[in-house]
Amino acid sequence: MTVLILTNEEDVTADMVVVHLNAAGVPVVRFDPSDLTGDVALSGEYAHGTFHGHLSSGGRLVALSGLRSVWVRRPGAAAARAAAPSPWLAEESGQALYGMLRASDLRWMNHPDAARRARHKPWQLRLAQRCGLPVPATLITTFPQAAREFAARHPDLVVKPVSGAHPQDPPRAVPTSRVAPDADFSAVAFGPTLLQRRVVKRADIRLTAVGGELLAARKPAGADAEVDVRFAPSDSPWRPVEVEARVAEGVHAYLRRAGLAYGAFDFAEDADGTWWFLECNQSGQFGFVEVDTGQPIARSIAEWLATPMPGRPAPSGDTDARMA
Amino acid sequence: MTVLILTNEEDVTADMVVVHLNAAGVPVVRFDPSDLTGDVALSGEYAHGTFHGHLSSGGRLVALSGLRSVWVRRPGAAAARAAAPSPWLAEESGQALYGMLRASDLRWMNHPDAARRARHKPWQLRLAQRCGLPVPATLITTFPQAAREFAARHPDLVVKPVSGAHPQDPPRAVPTSRVAPDADFSAVAFGPTLLQRRVVKRADIRLTAVGGELLAARKPAGADAEVDVRFAPSDSPWRPVEVEARVAEGVHAYLRRAGLAYGAFDFAEDADGTWWFLECNQSGQFGFVEVDTGQPIARSIAEWLATPMPGRPAPSGDTDARMA
Repeated sequence: MTVLILTNEEDVTADMVVVHLNAAGVPVVRFDPSDLTGDVALSGEYAHGTFHGHLSSGGRLVALSGLRSVWVRRPGAAAARAAAPSPWLAEESGQALYGMLRASDLRWMNHPDAARRARHKPWQLRLAQRCGLPVPATLITTFPQAAREFAARHPDLVVKPVSGAHPQDPPRAVPTSRVAPDADFSAVAFGPTLLQRRVVKRADIRLTAVGGELLAARKPAGADAEVDVRFAPSDSPWRPVEVEARVAEGVHAYLRRAGLAYGAFDFAEDADGTWWFLECNQSGQFGFVEVDTGQPIARSIAEWLATPMPGRPAPSGDTDARMA
Repeated sequence: MTVLILTNEEDVTADMVVVHLNAAGVPVVRFDPSDLTGDVALSGEYAHGTFHGHLSSGGRLVALSGLRSVWVRRPGAAAARAAAPSPWLAEESGQALYGMLRASDLRWMNHPDAARRARHKPWQLRLAQRCGLPVPATLITTFPQAAREFAARHPDLVVKPVSGAHPQDPPRAVPTSRVAPDADFSAVAFGPTLLQRRVVKRADIRLTAVGGELLAARKPAGADAEVDVRFAPSDSPWRPVEVEARVAEGVHAYLRRAGLAYGAFDFAEDADGTWWFLECNQSGQFGFVEVDTGQPIARSIAEWLATPMPGRPAPSGDTDARMA
């Protein structure tokens, strides 16, 4: 049974996982959907109530029924590198590839629908609340008056994007920033704005969840801590940290209800030691944490991809779905 | 409790449903997400484990907790008609609107994730098979040799797109066409191609499913019947037709496993009276069927939107999800 990895060629984080799969003797097929219909080919036949599909990459043929799992890492757009790329070819190729994979009995890390849903920050915050994770007071609004009233109640605010990275090419991360006390909120009317009570943090927490396994790391904040750790100078390294039972319960519930096999949770630890939920990135990087902490994240991912886990619902392509 | 309809202003099919909702005294809010952040505004606040959201359109404010259902009909892209539209504003606005709706306890027709999955033809065909609906022998391939072998086994073939409409502006439907006996399949290597055994049909069947209700219509094929009914001259009208128990069972199973509240199924009826599954369009038009047959499709949709149905799983924004 083969593990399928969909990602670009330059993805060195995927390389880390492939090393473990190779060491364990697990067959791997890795390609970028961009290489449809050049280096990558596909075929599927429906007859007499059955379906038989195949993928081919680099001259190697694998039956869809021989796949055990698929890791959707950082795939390019379908057929983007075809001889004559077009929106039509991209659509046809993407529907063919993902349609056949969806029709197969596979374990997904992560399933495309779960991944897409998980990107919605307004949904994330609500789910975190429902799972008992502390969420800082947050407002998402296009009403300037609502923003003003919120700022009056919470004088120390940060502003961040509702969505993720700015869709320029290449995408650019938009930093979380503090809101000045005399901020004018009239422009809120022209675009949804996410305001959040600033957590005065003594550390950043990155909790990487792989299946049922939780690997948390902690990075102490400096005296004049930057709000956004991604843009802070790396003075102290990430260090492994224990996950309190209550947080672990909340994270497990979040993953289960989100239908995610992988998630990178960001928390801010305040002076009382409370971990405040900031976000869960379903495709968050983990290489930098593994390098600092030595936590075996890549190995955990390889194990999840290689081994059917007991107690997990069958991730069939079309079992009864309670779309949530 | 209000019904939310997301669609464009010109959508006369939605008008048909609104008439029934108005007659029943059910409050309706209808807008196009394109009108964010102009005529449409939104706001949501997270505090102490709770969430309170609001939408405003045309000066009318509605609480998200006051919505009972949402009909995702033909919405435009978020913020497309904003004063200064941009990909960034579209992303932010779409995530804010759909993120808040996903975070709310609503019944969806159809849920965006179910809708997206349901568009994958390779997945549709497999699901139809698994639900016991007859599917004509079909090949989806980029291998010219596979196409040649399939054509040798099935000399009377049609070719159709793997995906739906051609993504030009406005989108254009690509007709299903017959394959000439001497067809050269080399070009298959450059784009996934869907070949299907042609069903020699005596009628087209359109089965419109609204919740648990199935409304089927039949249109006899002429002597020199066009393959694609959408491009055939309308010589005979659609007429209501009974749904056999076995087909009804298959369709109910399909909808349940697909997580769809609405689906427009196309079948080809052969000389033996067998209905061959061709596709299920989760946003298929129904106005033309209702006009011909007098079947109360719009009223059924209005009733589904207005009334919580017993026995349906709660369509909460984040209940446990078995993403399939």
